[in-house]
Parts: sequence; C-alpha cells; structure tokens
Amino acid sequence: MQSFNPPIRTLMGPGPSDVHPRVLLAMARPTIGHLDPAFIGMMEETKAALQYAFQTENELTMPVSAPGSAGMETCFANLVEPGDKVIVCINGVFGTRMKENVTRLGGDAIVVDDAWGEAISVDKVAQALSDNPDAKLVAFVHAETSTGAQSNVKALCELAHQHDCITIVDTVTSLAGSELRVDDWGIDAIYSGTQKCLSAMPGISPVSFNARARHKLTNRKIPVSSWFLDLNLVMGYWGKGAKRAYHHTAPVNTLYGLHEALVMLTEEGLENAWARHWQNHLELKQGLEDLGVDLVVKEGDRLPQLNTVWIPDGVDDLATRAALLNDYNLEIGAGLGDLAGKVWRIGLMGHSSRKENITLCLAAFKNILNK
Amino acid sequence: MQSFNPPIRTLMGPGPSDVHPRVLLAMARPTIGHLDPAFIGMMEETKAALQYAFQTENELTMPVSAPGSAGMETCFANLVEPGDKVIVCINGVFGTRMKENVTRLGGDAIVVDDAWGEAISVDKVAQALSDNPDAKLVAFVHAETSTGAQSNVKALCELAHQHDCITIVDTVTSLAGSELRVDDWGIDAIYSGTQKCLSAMPGISPVSFNARARHKLTNRKIPVSSWFLDLNLVMGYWGKGAKRAYHHTAPVNTLYGLHEALVMLTEEGLENAWARHWQNHLELKQGLEDLGVDLVVKEGDRLPQLNTVWIPDGVDDLATRAALLNDYNLEIGAGLGDLAGKVWRIGLMGHSSRKENITLCLAAFKNILNK
Repeated sequence: MQSFNPPIRTLMGPGPSDVHPRVLLAMARPTIGHLDPAFIGMMEETKAALQYAFQTENELTMPVSAPGSAGMETCFANLVEPGDKVIVCINGVFGTRMKENVTRLGGDAIVVDDAWGEAISVDKVAQALSDNPDAKLVAFVHAETSTGAQSNVKALCELAHQHDCITIVDTVTSLAGSELRVDDWGIDAIYSGTQKCLSAMPGISPVSFNARARHKLTNRKIPVSSWFLDLNLVMGYWGKGAKRAYHHTAPVNTLYGLHEALVMLTEEGLENAWARHWQNHLELKQGLEDLGVDLVVKEGDRLPQLNTVWIPDGVDDLATRAALLNDYNLEIGAGLGDLAGKVWRIGLMGHSSRKENITLCLAAFKNILNK
Repeated sequence: MQSFNPPIRTLMGPGPSDVHPRVLLAMARPTIGHLDPAFIGMMEETKAALQYAFQTENELTMPVSAPGSAGMETCFANLVEPGDKVIVCINGVFGTRMKENVTRLGGDAIVVDDAWGEAISVDKVAQALSDNPDAKLVAFVHAETSTGAQSNVKALCELAHQHDCITIVDTVTSLAGSELRVDDWGIDAIYSGTQKCLSAMPGISPVSFNARARHKLTNRKIPVSSWFLDLNLVMGYWGKGAKRAYHHTAPVNTLYGLHEALVMLTEEGLENAWARHWQNHLELKQGLEDLGVDLVVKEGDRLPQLNTVWIPDGVDDLATRAALLNDYNLEIGAGLGDLAGKVWRIGLMGHSSRKENITLCLAAFKNILNK
C-alpha cells in the first residue's frame, strides 16, 4: 500500500467542482482542537460569511459536519414530527430523496410531481395546499442537480406561507452560483453543499433556519430521532453566545477549507460570482449549440452552473465520457434516475466556471463527436 | 475577513491528536470525482487497510462520511428497531450517549451503571442479561474517552453471545492505540474515529459489521430512520462488488487523509503502534507520579493513549490549562460530565505519542505547578 496521488482532472460534472488551490492549502494547515479559542474565532467568521452567502440574518446559520445529504436530513429530522403532512415537490432525484426522508421520519408525504427537467409548477403546489389544509411543511429543490432546472423559490415560499406552512429548500447546487436570497424570498429552512459553486471540498453542508423554523424545532413534542443532527444540541457548540459545549468533534481541517472558500467569495463579491456563472453559461451554451448538442431545460428555467444536454443520436454515452476522462482528464456527469443514459450534465461551478474550461470542454467534445 | 492561519499547537488532549504532516499534505492533493475510477481504487485500498487496523475480515468495513458520533449513530440506527431491548453499559460520557441513541430510535435501554473511571463490570452485565432474556443487543465502550478506562471486550462479547445478543462496541479512542481484535474478540458491530490514534483529521468514522450484524440490518422490519446512515444504501457505493451507485458525495480529500494515515500504520505495523503507545504511557505516568500527580484509573484498566489525572489540591483547572495553551501551545483535555473540574485528560495518541511531547508536557507542568 502506497501513498495515493490522484490524477489531475478538470471537474465539469455535477460536483465536486475543481477545488481552488487556496482551499486545498487551507485544509493542509495544522489541526488545532475544536475547542481552541483560535478555532472558536474562525467559527464565528465562518457563520457570518455563510450569512452573507445565503443573504440572511438568520442567527442559526452554520455548517453541518457531514455532506449535503446530511444537510437535507438535518432539515427534515429537526422539522418533521411523526404524522406531519409535508408537501414534497418532485422534479428530479433530490425531490425523491426528500420524500424518502419524510417517510422514514414518520411524516406523511404529499407528492407534487413535475417532469424531470422542468421547473416546479406553482399552480400544482397551490392545488396541493388547497387539498391539504392540514399540511405543515412544503419542501422543494431550488436547483435540481439531476436535471439542471431551477424553480421559483420566492413564489413557492409566498404560497406556502399563505397556507401557514414552513418551507424547506434544497440549494446544494445554487449557493454562490445563481441568485439566492434567503430572507427576501422567505425561505424558512435551507441546506446547501460546499463542493459545488463554493469550490470547496465535499464533506460538510451549510444550513440556515429562520425564527419560524427554530420555533418548530424547539417546540417538538418528541426528540429528534438523530442525536447527531439534533440542532437543539448542535447549537450548544455552534450557537450565538453558546458555551461551545462539546457535542461532536468538528471536522477541523474541512472547516479551514470552507473558511478559505468563503474568504474568496467575499473577495469576488456574491453578485459578481452569480454574474460570472451566468456569462460562462451563455458561452458554453453557444458552443454546444454550434456542435449540435441541445440543452434539456427550456430557456428561463436553466441553471447556469449545471447544463444538462441530450446525448446526440448514435453517440455512445459511456465511451464518450471515458474518452473525455482518459484522453482529456475531463470529468462530466452522467444522467441520473429517469435521465440515465439519455443526458450528460456539464457543470460550470465555482472555480470550474472559467473560460479555459469551456474552451477545453468544447474542443474535446468536437474532437470526440466528429470521429 | 482574511485567511485563517491557526496557531501551531501540540495536541495532548482527548483528540484531535496531532495530525501528521503527511496526512495534512495528502488532504491538499487535487480533488477528483467520487465516482472516478482512480478514486474507486483508493476506496478499495482504504477498506483493506481498515480491515487490518480492526483485525477483521468483515466485508462491511468502511468509513462513514461524518464524525465518530455519526459512526455511533450508524451502528444504533441500523441495528436497533423500535421496541428492541438493548443492554447499555455506562461508565462515562459515551455510554450515556449510547443510551440516548437507543431511546431516540425507539429502543428500550436497560442501563448497567459503573463508576466513571472504572471498567465495566462483567458480572453486572451477566446479571442484566439474566434479568432480561429478551434483550437483543449489548452496547458498550471499549476505551472511555471521558475517563481513560478500558473494559474487557472479549469477555463482554462472549457473555452477550451466550445470550444470543449482538454487540455494538465503541473503539473511537482504542483503534491503533491499544490491542483491538474484532474477529478474535467476537465484536459484531464496531465504530471508531480517525482523529485519535490514527492521527488523521477529524470528520469521518470507520465502522465494521460482521455477518451476524449484517443479517439484522438486512432483515429489518421497518427502514432505518436515517436515509443518510442506512448501510443498506451506503453499501451500494462502498460495498464489495457494488456498482458504486451514487448515494452521497464522499468527502474526497478527507478520505485522502485517512488513506495516508493507514499507509503510515501499515509502515509502522499495528502491534508496533500498540507497543509505542504503551511505552510512552509508562514514561508519562512515571513523570506525573514524580510531580505528585495521580492517575484516576487503577492499574490494569488504564488506557495508554489517554491518561486521566486528578487535578492536585489547590490547583486552578482553568488557569493551568490556559497557561499550558498560551505559554507552551500545549493542549490537554478538561474533565467531562461528572469529572468536570476534577480531572485533566492527557492524550498520547497517534503522532502525539512521542518522547518529545512527554518531555514538553512534564516540563511545562513542572514549571506551572511549582509556581
């Protein structure tokens, strides 16, 4: 057994995206204790920078010590109590996973289905809310990583609030890549990832809860089934004015990495990051269309950071992705679920969203598809 | 907001221990995709090396993508079904946490209490098993991180099996630091940490399940309440011969770090690592006794990697630890729970278990205590 030296790839799949060398080096800094006063100071800066990234003043804003899937589970495990009726919108893999969360936690999932690759229909959600006046929560994905479609968060939150429901929103792929305004849009509970448009390593998951969501979690009738994810306990370590009581050992070096990624976000400016993702999307889209490769999602609903395209007729999915990886060290994503074998997912996220990557990707595609 | 440059500490608390520079540098290697063929190869090596570290041939041996507390929850969430009676041994903080896990999952916890700082009484467990012939599981901590006491795993597992119970064993602090033989001792389900005697970064948790434990988890009547920790799903990504189906995005760089730590363990040899921890413990113990500082745990039950000592009469806990940290950059651990304010915990774990650290620690103590 020998040390592992990974190949040097360009990551243009659905995440992880290329991690910036500054973030990689930050992770290599010497580990200190998770209760060290110097570490506590870094935690405070991280929380403040996450509030900026989320555009929120929510006090409960922090990274969960596990990947985005655990961020999702943090929201559901804390907010869903057995018997709670939850409207779950499904227009891709991650909506399906939300339903699985609700069911396992003893909730009653009312599914609103939309076609994969389309935005969530606000009208259908309105109907579901009318049909289920006892619903307590509405859960949906802002940026569906499996399809590249984005939905109208603001409209869905307004609607949910008219029916006195709490919203849980998945923004794993949107955070720092396209417009996202937690407070202005009225999102109650949100989770995201670090390995997409923040260009940090995978492994932790920023979350944020507003007062309405906190009220539900602090007034539960039975404890959260997960000790590890129970925010009532976690906040003893991460919370404002908390005594930094030991709950679990924080992933110290991973948090160094997130902190550095957030420093870089503040340097670039959030709106500049959104604009960069958008401009690069336009350039990639033009190039793909010139090659005769069509986007799956209709204009207006497209995510700039995740471009899902139909695999052209007669082109071999596996062979093409293998050629990109082996001959160009370029990773793109396969289709998931209903779209497996039919689409590719081309990410332009965070540090991967750069002109040179678009150029490489288009040139490599041209070489392979013209064979 | 600026880049965070941590102070350079010597970590002699209950973990994290000093992370070896080789592990830090491994984490800084370029991120690749969690489905990249090169990454899959590294995963296989990591599983094999964890089997070596655990001394097991269990096929289900892998790191959970979250800290040790989530490793604990992985064992309980997968193996405890609502209504299951579980004998839980409590002789410190982590036994208490086990009970909390059982209760939140709908299990019925039968507590066997022992004094903090003492080993678990095999006789009391025998009595509890006789009193509860319908018990399904026995859970206990091998190496109590809150007290520094170790218990007789082999005897407890034999006893549990006589009563047809499955064992769940916490070895967060023992793995790679003192003798641990999963197969020889008959452990059914085990979890550990990376940030103790493996000297890797905190954030992931190795687990291993034998055939008996797997049988229970694959024959559950209701699904695991946690989607994220459900091993029936996780094994689609990590399992032998699995299709490497996407479950969650693996913490790629953290896994680089664990891989490197395991390379170093194979270089040193597991039994040599155990012997090093033991020799360094004897040296520290002698030095502490020369300073008039007494160990809490009685000889025979002491963990070599975690030395819990009584705070001498008239000595200020907080002021002493602050002086060690501020004047010597040396971190030791405070007491937890019942032992808060009464003891210190001095770790000699992994890369921290070195002669120069013992020398520094003893000299610093001498300077401070003689004031």
